[in-house]
Amino acid sequence: MRNIKIVIEYDGTAFHGWQYQPGLRTVQGEIQKALVKIFQFEGNVVGAGRTDTGVHAKGQVANFLINHSMPVLTIQAALNGNLCRDVRIISAEEVDENFHARYNAIKRLYCYKITQRERAIDRFYMWCYKSQLDVKKIQQASNYLLGEHNFKAFCHAEENVNHYRCYIEHIVWEQKDEILTLNIIANRFLHNMVRIIIGTMINVGKGFTPIEQIPLILNSRDRRNAGPTVPAKGLCLEKVYY
Amino acid sequence: MRNIKIVIEYDGTAFHGWQYQPGLRTVQGEIQKALVKIFQFEGNVVGAGRTDTGVHAKGQVANFLINHSMPVLTIQAALNGNLCRDVRIISAEEVDENFHARYNAIKRLYCYKITQRERAIDRFYMWCYKSQLDVKKIQQASNYLLGEHNFKAFCHAEENVNHYRCYIEHIVWEQKDEILTLNIIANRFLHNMVRIIIGTMINVGKGFTPIEQIPLILNSRDRRNAGPTVPAKGLCLEKVYY
Repeated sequence: MRNIKIVIEYDGTAFHGWQYQPGLRTVQGEIQKALVKIFQFEGNVVGAGRTDTGVHAKGQVANFLINHSMPVLTIQAALNGNLCRDVRIISAEEVDENFHARYNAIKRLYCYKITQRERAIDRFYMWCYKSQLDVKKIQQASNYLLGEHNFKAFCHAEENVNHYRCYIEHIVWEQKDEILTLNIIANRFLHNMVRIIIGTMINVGKGFTPIEQIPLILNSRDRRNAGPTVPAKGLCLEKVYY
Repeated sequence: MRNIKIVIEYDGTAFHGWQYQPGLRTVQGEIQKALVKIFQFEGNVVGAGRTDTGVHAKGQVANFLINHSMPVLTIQAALNGNLCRDVRIISAEEVDENFHARYNAIKRLYCYKITQRERAIDRFYMWCYKSQLDVKKIQQASNYLLGEHNFKAFCHAEENVNHYRCYIEHIVWEQKDEILTLNIIANRFLHNMVRIIIGTMINVGKGFTPIEQIPLILNSRDRRNAGPTVPAKGLCLEKVYY
């Protein structure tokens, strides 16, 4: 069997997220459907991160096993020819048979964009939030999250995982014109973690939550102490590191 | 009568251009329809530039006369409340009664984006053109267009205007990652002028048209000597100067 690694860009607007769900349009589902057409594929396309409904990706990574000699560039072209325009295979390469897109990933970069005025262009790729925010405070509060912590307070309550420890190595806010961008890198992300961190930081930026509250929220391990989950459309999986 | 100047951003994808056309969805038509709802408006919304079907705008400017005391910020909010999300009024102000969005404009900035790989995100805002291009040659050829010239060779054949003279003060190509961007400023633009200039420059960048051919094409005043009209979706009216 050959192991094929692909890098995928998708516009999450019209998808019910990454993960295959019968009867719903998902990115994994669409790619598997295309592979069935091309190869009578019967396997599974393993993705590095399970993005939610409406979340975008510029650098999602996946892999799948095939029993066919087709060159990788032809596989890439055949996939793009069989996929809708809102999913594109950016690159494809043959990798070691042990490569696993999810288990071998060492960290992920997510980007979230907030527009502080209404927009027509890019309206599907940014969350419009017009209140004034103190970005300096937001950055100071975010710095408390750097390093390894238990992020149970910052994930979807129904999360069912072995543990809640994540290591955040980079969390940087940047204001440019009327767009506020967050770049965050961690070894792993829990369900809704980025969106709950942002909702919490918005509360800091508005002055509702004092900066010093952040370690207390973190240590409480209670989702109810963190802020709201911000909308999916501002979020994009930029890169997966191996 | 009060004269209201508005700055408009729109995603041209689902519009038959700026200009009102009965039975078709146009930006001018939608704004006028919203003004009818708000004010029983009977006038005309004058736009600075008549963008074509599929062309976007981040800084289109328009003005209209009203006989109503509503504050401008309320007018802006009322318009945005009555318009679809692919048109947004970015700002509104009351201006001198003699202000005319089209006649008073002294220059316009258009931006065109070419992506050199397929994209899912931003696919409606860039033209995908994958061949290798010599950007240095393209810039050298473009420099021939700087200053005042007769641009009859670079406009839609059916163009019906008083004269073809335009003054291009800035024409700069920039390559960043896999995106090639053109920024062009002129006092006026003829129909399809930017898109025909780009089509011509693509021929230069591929080596089909020698750089020295550009002045000859310009002087021929014959549309058939210039290159093809590139797709609308890469084009955006960025700014109108007064």
